[in-house]
Amino acid sequence: MRKCDSTRNAILEHATSMASQVGLTGLTIGNLAGDLELSKSGLFAHFDSKETLQIQVLEHAAASFVEQVVRPALKAPRGVPRLQAVFERWLIWDRGLPGGCVFAAAASELDDRPGPVRERLVELQRQWVEFLTTSFRKAIEAGHVAADADPAQYAQDLYGIMLGWHYYSRLLGDPAADRRARRAFDALLDAARPG
Amino acid sequence: MRKCDSTRNAILEHATSMASQVGLTGLTIGNLAGDLELSKSGLFAHFDSKETLQIQVLEHAAASFVEQVVRPALKAPRGVPRLQAVFERWLIWDRGLPGGCVFAAAASELDDRPGPVRERLVELQRQWVEFLTTSFRKAIEAGHVAADADPAQYAQDLYGIMLGWHYYSRLLGDPAADRRARRAFDALLDAARPG
Repeated sequence: MRKCDSTRNAILEHATSMASQVGLTGLTIGNLAGDLELSKSGLFAHFDSKETLQIQVLEHAAASFVEQVVRPALKAPRGVPRLQAVFERWLIWDRGLPGGCVFAAAASELDDRPGPVRERLVELQRQWVEFLTTSFRKAIEAGHVAADADPAQYAQDLYGIMLGWHYYSRLLGDPAADRRARRAFDALLDAARPG
Repeated sequence: MRKCDSTRNAILEHATSMASQVGLTGLTIGNLAGDLELSKSGLFAHFDSKETLQIQVLEHAAASFVEQVVRPALKAPRGVPRLQAVFERWLIWDRGLPGGCVFAAAASELDDRPGPVRERLVELQRQWVEFLTTSFRKAIEAGHVAADADPAQYAQDLYGIMLGWHYYSRLLGDPAADRRARRAFDALLDAARPG
């Protein structure tokens, strides 16, 4: 079993890298088998369909996101320090992936493709939005942020900053994208400060 | 020639719709021929390769964007009224496309696929960013916006608002996404007001 688990993990690690470049729909068991020098039937023993593979890639990426973003951020004190830790970790979490954030790519890829993969993606993204909203609510409770600030507005604004950054840095290759994303985040927190 | 042009236009219209749903890489001459009940060889007479078709789809979408967003916005007076017109037009321009904005989809699809299609996409997107930056600069000149506000920062922030809105409305199906995008845009202009 242990060998089987580590093989499975190595396959998912590679599949997640591939998906970050060619997207979840570009990921095929055939390509993956070729890259890893495994037989297609060997891969089918781990993932019985392309859909199972795609969902497992999402789970794998989500687990890595929790490990690299959520867990370290939860060590920061509640309120603004935690919001800052979330932002900084989020900005660097996809550096290990050759094609950048798997979720950003999957979001525009799957938004018009109903089915279990899209459903799982939406669940994972809703959990993340919920985490952002809750972190902001705690910053209100801590008095770091104005009591009338809107946590749902904050979450959408922050998501926008991250997607804008992803677009400017990955598509346009703009070296100032990081600096502008940080400025936008600081402005977002400044605007929410208690009066 | 006239019949040929109108056939070509009808093909591109349909191809752009398809690309908005399945992405540029999901677009194949075979699928398109099937949908339009044309022969593959008939399609090849108009587009000699998949790459030519993809680039033509980008040009077609860009022309429609200019028609529906840029041209009407240029009728608004320079400065903040024009910035507002750009934003409102941009927010609704992709309503005619079943899968939403072709460029938003293509951006994350092509960011890791070097080649002429990506290059054309980047050129078109740079032109758009340049238009946003210039519009903001004119708002500074008109005294509607603080002289020390940064036009490049504005363009990235605005792009983020649009991408966040696209993600919230198309993937998460959140009915409040529009309202929040408008609030974020108002806050962006408020923050840039001359002191």
